[in-house]
Amino acid sequence: MVEASVSPEAFLAMGREVLAAQPFSQLIGAELATFSKGRCELHVPVSDSVKQQHGFVHGGVVSYAADNALTYAGGSALGMLVVTAEFKINYLRPAIGDRLIARAEAVHTGKTQSVCRCDVFVLKDGEEKLCAVAQGTIAALPPKS
Amino acid sequence: MVEASVSPEAFLAMGREVLAAQPFSQLIGAELATFSKGRCELHVPVSDSVKQQHGFVHGGVVSYAADNALTYAGGSALGMLVVTAEFKINYLRPAIGDRLIARAEAVHTGKTQSVCRCDVFVLKDGEEKLCAVAQGTIAALPPKS
Amino acid sequence: MVEASVSPEAFLAMGREVLAAQPFSQLIGAELATFSKGRCELHVPVSDSVKQQHGFVHGGVVSYAADNALTYAGGSALGMLVVTAEFKINYLRPAIGDRLIARAEAVHTGKTQSVCRCDVFVLKDGEEKLCAVAQGTIAALPPKS
Amino acid sequence: MVEASVSPEAFLAMGREVLAAQPFSQLIGAELATFSKGRCELHVPVSDSVKQQHGFVHGGVVSYAADNALTYAGGSALGMLVVTAEFKINYLRPAIGDRLIARAEAVHTGKTQSVCRCDVFVLKDGEEKLCAVAQGTIAALPPKS
Repeated sequence: MVEASVSPEAFLAMGREVLAAQPFSQLIGAELATFSKGRCELHVPVSDSVKQQHGFVHGGVVSYAADNALTYAGGSALGMLVVTAEFKINYLRPAIGDRLIARAEAVHTGKTQSVCRCDVFVLKDGEEKLCAVAQGTIAALPPKS
Repeated sequence: MVEASVSPEAFLAMGREVLAAQPFSQLIGAELATFSKGRCELHVPVSDSVKQQHGFVHGGVVSYAADNALTYAGGSALGMLVVTAEFKINYLRPAIGDRLIARAEAVHTGKTQSVCRCDVFVLKDGEEKLCAVAQGTIAALPPKS
Repeated sequence: MVEASVSPEAFLAMGREVLAAQPFSQLIGAELATFSKGRCELHVPVSDSVKQQHGFVHGGVVSYAADNALTYAGGSALGMLVVTAEFKINYLRPAIGDRLIARAEAVHTGKTQSVCRCDVFVLKDGEEKLCAVAQGTIAALPPKS
Repeated sequence: MVEASVSPEAFLAMGREVLAAQPFSQLIGAELATFSKGRCELHVPVSDSVKQQHGFVHGGVVSYAADNALTYAGGSALGMLVVTAEFKINYLRPAIGDRLIARAEAVHTGKTQSVCRCDVFVLKDGEEKLCAVAQGTIAALPPKS
């Protein structure tokens, strides 16, 4: 997926191409703000369509942001095609604001798996509040035989 | 949220009203197929807009289905307004098919929390395949003071 | 680790040999009650030495029982040497009684990983009470090169 | 459980009293190295009795260290009697060395729950290696009625 000689700009552009190829990420307007080996920051602008019945961002959208950010962090750390094998998320407070910001990083990367952590913030009136924390495993796709 | 004397039909109708009030659930076309105290079955029809770049259902949509099904199961077991406090999901195989089916049930329900499990299947050519398993905690909202 | 032609008795005996080779399992007196492909039941007799300050079984012992039972279930499903890659546990009630009983089973087994679930009960006055539920991933050890 | 005016020394002494009152923690020789509001460092010296069949520290002991460290971090953040409600752990590498070091901190603390993270290291030849990461919920015990 990645090469050591890729420039930071090309790396980010590559990550954005992947996101642009995900119809669901397009549906909810996700944006890749930063992307480097083992790290990423993924945004989801808060529109009415990503909310639940009380006006908060739906938990499923928060978990999407965590899941996708974990995958970018782990995939770039591994440098190959990956899937999220599993993750766990704790919701800390209702996500009320203008934008979700999910920051993930690889904590430990082996040959075929990377364990990553993610913090999800909600931006409101220029202030970030932590609204969820996640931890999960990103696994390399087995080579096709 | 629920009363013992509510008929099964009214119970399901009430659950569907909640789902209809969630803009995000409407965005992806989620449907509540069955709903009773401590149990539910939630469906998400597979359209292109819920997919990722390889044509599978996006993991974030699978986790939405698990999260929301857990919340219905735990909320109805507790009988009050709830939020998902946390959950964990293992993805077992790519979700390729026509419909996601998330079945959740409460495993243990206390006064303020319910621990629930969920199996997510994908329906393809009339056959269900298990594609994810989840486990989490649904918590009663604290009373407003 | 296992062969298809092994008798149930030999299979259980093999599992018990592994447990006997684990000094920590011996320290707390763990016993393998049943063991077959993809399933096991592991017991821990409740002595004072496995308790915490309130007289309940220490959560760390409950998580040991879940972890080890998951490993037996997943390892036998995979049929090779394994490690626990990750797991999640929800504690449901204090473990007060005479014996912990952890029952695990493989939910989905691929070529190199098995996702398993475990219920941990505590036996008191002849009655079993569910005190924890767990879910995790058992991974095959990579072949030595 | 704690008062704002307690000195750091008294705080640590109080934490050690709790550990001394846990027979299981005594059985495996756990030590509380540091303890302050929302943070702790718990050690387990590696003796043969905490190992599994390959000579590594048993996963159940690693999960005990994470569980107990999470509880100290969350309990002191909440300032009341607590239990571990749930946690998740990813094992990163075999724990081979002289001493387990579990460092936990509270990430977000509400009125009745604290979500905490923990890193577990193994110390070998003076060098620490990260061998597991955990995340979980510590819950206040409901007042007795």
